[in-house]
Amino acid sequence: MFRIDNLQYAKWSEKIFRQLREGGVDAVHVTIAYHENFRETVLNFAQWNRWFEQFPDLICHGEWASDVQKAHDTGRTAVFFGFQNPSPIEDDIGLVQVLHKLGARFMQLSYNNQSLLATGCYEAEDPGITRMGRQVIKEMNRVGMVIDMSHSADRSTIEAADISQRPITITHANLHSWQPALRNKRDAVVRAVVQNGGMMGFSLYPHHLRDKSACTLHSFCEMVARAAEQFGAQHFGIGSDLCQDQPDSVVEWMRVGRWTKEIDYGEGSASAPGFPPMPDWFRDNRDFGTLETGLREIGFDADEVAGLMGDNWHRFYAENFTPT
Amino acid sequence: MFRIDNLQYAKWSEKIFRQLREGGVDAVHVTIAYHENFRETVLNFAQWNRWFEQFPDLICHGEWASDVQKAHDTGRTAVFFGFQNPSPIEDDIGLVQVLHKLGARFMQLSYNNQSLLATGCYEAEDPGITRMGRQVIKEMNRVGMVIDMSHSADRSTIEAADISQRPITITHANLHSWQPALRNKRDAVVRAVVQNGGMMGFSLYPHHLRDKSACTLHSFCEMVARAAEQFGAQHFGIGSDLCQDQPDSVVEWMRVGRWTKEIDYGEGSASAPGFPPMPDWFRDNRDFGTLETGLREIGFDADEVAGLMGDNWHRFYAENFTPT
Repeated sequence: MFRIDNLQYAKWSEKIFRQLREGGVDAVHVTIAYHENFRETVLNFAQWNRWFEQFPDLICHGEWASDVQKAHDTGRTAVFFGFQNPSPIEDDIGLVQVLHKLGARFMQLSYNNQSLLATGCYEAEDPGITRMGRQVIKEMNRVGMVIDMSHSADRSTIEAADISQRPITITHANLHSWQPALRNKRDAVVRAVVQNGGMMGFSLYPHHLRDKSACTLHSFCEMVARAAEQFGAQHFGIGSDLCQDQPDSVVEWMRVGRWTKEIDYGEGSASAPGFPPMPDWFRDNRDFGTLETGLREIGFDADEVAGLMGDNWHRFYAENFTPT
Repeated sequence: MFRIDNLQYAKWSEKIFRQLREGGVDAVHVTIAYHENFRETVLNFAQWNRWFEQFPDLICHGEWASDVQKAHDTGRTAVFFGFQNPSPIEDDIGLVQVLHKLGARFMQLSYNNQSLLATGCYEAEDPGITRMGRQVIKEMNRVGMVIDMSHSADRSTIEAADISQRPITITHANLHSWQPALRNKRDAVVRAVVQNGGMMGFSLYPHHLRDKSACTLHSFCEMVARAAEQFGAQHFGIGSDLCQDQPDSVVEWMRVGRWTKEIDYGEGSASAPGFPPMPDWFRDNRDFGTLETGLREIGFDADEVAGLMGDNWHRFYAENFTPT
C-alpha cells in the first residue's frame, strides 16, 4: 500500500522533505511550472537536481511507477514533476519529448486562461481543443506525458478526454455538486474523465472546500464517498494542492504571471488576496494519517482506502508514464 | 566485436543512416553542437528524436554501453550525442546534469578559442583550466559526461587530464609526430590522457592526415601502429571526423560561429576554404571494412584490431557514462 499526493506546490525545504517522511508519503507530484517558459522550467529541474543531491536520504527523482516502490523500500519520497500550464513547451511540439525525458509526467493544457492548446476555466468562452492542442495531445500520448485538465474549462476538458488515446486526469479539484467553486468539476466533466480510465485527485485547497478553511474532515470524506458511489472509488486519489510556506507573492504569480499588469484575485478576493489557511485536520504532509482515518470512518473498506490514499495513482503511473 | 566511430558531423539523411548499416557501424558519437547555446542545442536533440521516430529500423538513441549491444543485436546503429564546445551549458553548471539526462555523453571544454572553461588550440596563450572549468570537470565526472579535449590547447589538456577524477578523451586527432598539424597531439599531451586511462580516436579528416587527401591507408595504419607501440593499443580507437554531405557553409559555421565578423580559415586557407575531399580508401561509413583490413595488414592481431575498431570505445563507454 502506497501513499501518494498527486499535487503539491510547496516552498520546498528540508523541513518539508522531513514532513513528507513523517507523513509516510511515498510519492508526490510537484508543480515546477506555472507560467515559466522552457528555459525557466529547466532552471526548476536543475534546482530539484540540487535538492536530490543535497537530501539523498529524504527524496529521490520519480520517473516511473517502480520508483514509488524503490522510494518506499528505502524510506524516501519519490518526487514526480508536472506543469500547470503548457508554457514550458512554448510553441514547439518537440519540447514534449524533451521535457518528458527530463522527467515531466503531467501537463495541464491550460491554466485559467486560453492557451495555445485549450481553454482555461476563467475564460468567458470555451471553443474547445485547438489545432495545436490536438497535435500535442497525440504527442503526449506517444511519449507518456499525462494530460491534466484541473484548471481547464468544461468543453475543453471533455474534448481532451475524448480525443486522447490514453486516460487523462484532473489532478486537483473537488465535486462542483459539493462545493460550487469555479475550479470544482461538474458531473459531466468528471464522467468524461473517468469513463476513459482517467483519474481525479481531491483537493484540500480551502477555496475548493465546502466552508473553505472551516471545512470538516467529515464533510470532505462524505464528498469522497459520494464521488466513489457515483463514479467508482478506483478513479480517485488525493491531489492536495498544498502550497505550504509559500509567500503571498507566489499566489499572485500563479494568478497573474506575466499576462496582465492588473491584479487578478482568482479564487481569492480583494479583502482576502493571499493563501487561505489550511483546515486544522490537514495542516501539512504530517496529517495524511488523519485523512486516512477519516476515509475509514466514513465507511470505505481497507482496499478502497488503500486505493484512495495512493494505490490508484500508483496503478495509473504504471500504465501512463511509459511511451506507447 | 563492435564497430564504433567516436566522432562524426555528417549532414544526416536516410542515405547516411543506410551507409552506417552497410559499414556495420554499431555505434557513432555525433556532434550536435559547435556554437549553439542551450536552447539551440535542445532543437538539435529534438531533431534527432524525430529521426529516431522516422527511422526506427536503422538508428536508435545511444545512452549507455548496453545500447551498443542492443543496436548490434537488432541490426541498427546506436547514436550517442556530444558537443565540440561547452556553449550548450552557457554559464550554468546545472545544465551539465540536464544535458546528460537528455543524452549528452561527450563535451569539449573548448573549441579552438578560449572558453569559460579552458583554452582552445588556436589561442596564442594557454593559461590552463579556469575556475569554472574546475567546477565543471567535477560535475561532468559526477554525472558521467566525458571530457573531450580534441580542440583544446596543450596545457589546458594536460591539466584537464590531471584534474579530472575520471579518464578523459581526445575523440578525434592524430599524432603530431606523424603530421604536424595544429590540431594533432604532441606526445606529452597523448601521454597525459592515456596514463589516466583516457582514450584517443584517430581522425580521418584530411587536414589531420599526412599528405592530406592523398594520404595512403598504409601511412595512416603505420601511424596507428606507432601510437600503439608507444602508448598501448588499448587506448585508441576511431573518431573519423566524417563531415559527409555538409555544404561548405557549415565548415564556416564551425570555424567562425558568431564570435567574429571576419573569415577565419582554421585548418583550411583562402585558396581552399571548404571541406577537403576524403581519402579514396575512406569515402564514408561503407569503408570501415577497408580500414579494418589495413590495420590487420600492418600487423595488429585480431584482439588489437577488434579493440581499435570499436571494443576499446565500448569498454570506455561502459566505464564512463554512468554517474559516480
